[in-house]
Amino acid sequence: MPRLLAAMTCLALLPAVALAQAPFTQADIATAARLRDAALADNGAYDIVASLTTEVGPRLAGSAGDKRAVAWAQRMLIELGLSNVRLQPVMVPHWERGRIEARVTAPFPQTLVATALGGSIGTDEAGIEAEVVRFDNIAELRAAAKEQVAGRIVYLGQRTERSNTSAGYLGTVYNRVSGPSIAASLDARALVIRSVGTSNDRIAHTGALSYDNNAPRIPAAALSNPDADLLERMLATGKPVRLFLKMGARELPYEQSANLIAEVPGTDLEDEVVLIGAHLDSWDLGTGAIDDGTGVAIAAETAALIARSGAKTRRTIRVVLFASEEYVVAGGAAYARLPEDEIGRHVVALEADAGADHVLALDSRVPEGKRGVVESIAGVLAPLRIELGKNESYGGADISGLMAGGVPALSLRQDWTNYLDAHHSPNDNLDKVDRVRLNQVVAAYVATVYLAAQAEGGFGRIDPPERTKPTTSGTRQ
Amino acid sequence: MPRLLAAMTCLALLPAVALAQAPFTQADIATAARLRDAALADNGAYDIVASLTTEVGPRLAGSAGDKRAVAWAQRMLIELGLSNVRLQPVMVPHWERGRIEARVTAPFPQTLVATALGGSIGTDEAGIEAEVVRFDNIAELRAAAKEQVAGRIVYLGQRTERSNTSAGYLGTVYNRVSGPSIAASLDARALVIRSVGTSNDRIAHTGALSYDNNAPRIPAAALSNPDADLLERMLATGKPVRLFLKMGARELPYEQSANLIAEVPGTDLEDEVVLIGAHLDSWDLGTGAIDDGTGVAIAAETAALIARSGAKTRRTIRVVLFASEEYVVAGGAAYARLPEDEIGRHVVALEADAGADHVLALDSRVPEGKRGVVESIAGVLAPLRIELGKNESYGGADISGLMAGGVPALSLRQDWTNYLDAHHSPNDNLDKVDRVRLNQVVAAYVATVYLAAQAEGGFGRIDPPERTKPTTSGTRQ
Repeated sequence: MPRLLAAMTCLALLPAVALAQAPFTQADIATAARLRDAALADNGAYDIVASLTTEVGPRLAGSAGDKRAVAWAQRMLIELGLSNVRLQPVMVPHWERGRIEARVTAPFPQTLVATALGGSIGTDEAGIEAEVVRFDNIAELRAAAKEQVAGRIVYLGQRTERSNTSAGYLGTVYNRVSGPSIAASLDARALVIRSVGTSNDRIAHTGALSYDNNAPRIPAAALSNPDADLLERMLATGKPVRLFLKMGARELPYEQSANLIAEVPGTDLEDEVVLIGAHLDSWDLGTGAIDDGTGVAIAAETAALIARSGAKTRRTIRVVLFASEEYVVAGGAAYARLPEDEIGRHVVALEADAGADHVLALDSRVPEGKRGVVESIAGVLAPLRIELGKNESYGGADISGLMAGGVPALSLRQDWTNYLDAHHSPNDNLDKVDRVRLNQVVAAYVATVYLAAQAEGGFGRIDPPERTKPTTSGTRQ
Repeated sequence: MPRLLAAMTCLALLPAVALAQAPFTQADIATAARLRDAALADNGAYDIVASLTTEVGPRLAGSAGDKRAVAWAQRMLIELGLSNVRLQPVMVPHWERGRIEARVTAPFPQTLVATALGGSIGTDEAGIEAEVVRFDNIAELRAAAKEQVAGRIVYLGQRTERSNTSAGYLGTVYNRVSGPSIAASLDARALVIRSVGTSNDRIAHTGALSYDNNAPRIPAAALSNPDADLLERMLATGKPVRLFLKMGARELPYEQSANLIAEVPGTDLEDEVVLIGAHLDSWDLGTGAIDDGTGVAIAAETAALIARSGAKTRRTIRVVLFASEEYVVAGGAAYARLPEDEIGRHVVALEADAGADHVLALDSRVPEGKRGVVESIAGVLAPLRIELGKNESYGGADISGLMAGGVPALSLRQDWTNYLDAHHSPNDNLDKVDRVRLNQVVAAYVATVYLAAQAEGGFGRIDPPERTKPTTSGTRQ
């Protein structure tokens, strides 16, 4: 029975093979589990978000808050005991929201709550008044004839679905990103969208648009969800609905900002880097607690927990707090322009930019041959109720440049169910952060990052992801 | 055994006595039950609120919206088929909110979300900048020494507790109503309070203050709950916290408005009136859906359901939509000044001014001897999961003048659990109204009002309630 014999031989060889390839020692696994459990009882990340939202608050790229945030972050990273704290200067755009007036003038005069989309131009002093034409989304708008749209204000009414993944966001965010230029190419005078958000609060959600150079630039704003409902009830009467829009939004000259870098130095593989990123900037409407104060806190506290534990890692753990993610990913782009040999030292990258809710799964983008390393890490996360996810991660906007250069990514996928209630809105404040859930996130990061810094043989190199997603790579958020 | 014999005699007499006093015929009870069940399948009230919030929206007393609301209401009452639709002219105050700028200038500069309390004066153009002194509530403030307060901005930090009754509101509303003048009597420059509301949205809740003639008038505003949290975190650092406040609030000349009156005429007791009240005005921040669009809809639809059913009532059912309840109860006061014989024709009054959530209990304020009538009505409400409540009702702000004149009240006590999330805030919009729950409220009203219009012997006369509550009688809401 040669086949059986062959099979038995294979089985006999398996343990030896597995042993030879084992990415982690038993001591590594034990240390990771110890760090994980310590993090569950640590409120350090919460304290960092509390400090940032209290002492700095909103920190739109290029604003005075942005400069205060850089100073705050430098101090914070030093106080946490991290090493090599330094700044990478980054020139960032400086867009200013200005005031907005939005009101229906006919058939039923009412003032609406609206906010400019990030990067929008303003109107002139006289404002714009025009009839509203409704489409559900950009696909419908693209299919429209110019005479339906020309001279009018386009309204996109698609509702963002609640989901525990980014699926709801991905379903509507292109209305915001691409809607303005599609409308402009059909000679619309302005665009208003239903907020890309799931709350029914009378506050509007902002977020960046992306003007296409082939279309005129027109003003663009988001209505709060109750105001979108109101507009739709008026449209449902069949009477012409006219909207007045006046916006003071404008671009100012670029300002200097910085990526903040801090490290926990490695030992025998000190030159190799495991990067944990988050972005320091925020939109201006809230205080940037869940976007991305918690990311800043998760990244910094993860490194600090490892540094304080005395557990030496083989590789260097590097925290990078990126500048100007929300508007043009200026910090991520600047970082990806580091010399090639510097980029080549990055073994793997993670980005924390999905709020304060608990981690559901460990996603990744690693070569297939390294999937076993990810599986081993996921094993240590299982007591946190974290599953092994998919190997299709886009990592995050700030690390997308690294990934384009072949750097693999690990992604701790957080629960999005309530994220879009507060994201990009005035409601993004500390009260949305739950200590217990945030501790679970830090526990997941600390175990993952520690093991990534120990993994025998590293994570190899990836082919750049084929497409980008606005939530996670490159496109303005 | 003469005592046993006496008891037996009493027992034997009881049915006859009860029968003699029975307030309702079996036909009355059957008709009330039929009306109740029909209302559960009727969405008329929802349609009325939708129309009001869409076609009129905010309708602060004295504003252009107020005038539009009066015209809308007159049309609506006629279209519903009600009789004797007429206006009682009422002069109403015209307060204007104006813009507000509130920001912390030290130790951590941040802009705060705030709104003027209703009736507040504004600041001058230069605004006010002063150190903040915190007290929890007016009791603590009253106990303060003048040197603690003089020249400062007083902040009252008490949090409104969530409750299914008005208890949470009553626990904090006096901070808003009386706080400004108590602070002023201690030479404070301004007052800010934590919003009297239970939401953690970054929107502030307004509501009327009441200046005391014995104190100077100082500007007063409410902070959103997340901004109150932020201010408290800054105060907790022990560093002096300075606030800048600039407000454009002002009083304009009185304007003419009106109480709207409409009836379902009675038959043999046509001169006797069962009154259902609600207030037509609203605050200006939202669209006045739950305060008090639903009250308007409940009152109007209740009368319309009875009129449409063809069930003739003995007494006249009168709907009154009061002017300017929120600020000075001008409409309720004007109505209570009707000639004494006119007031004397009111057999009982109800007011719908507690949102859109379901009814929990039938409260009342009737003479003890009439409690049996209330119990009989409660029996018909039992299938709606409505309990017999207490005989201590304050009725409502608009009918408090009638009650002071001896008119009894019935109160369908609604669930307040979520009411203060949206009440008096920008979030008071149609999306907060649930059709099914609203239908339950209308079902309760239609059965109660129908039976009140039939009740043999009426409800007698009450002693005026000894004290007033801001939620329910007379004081500005």
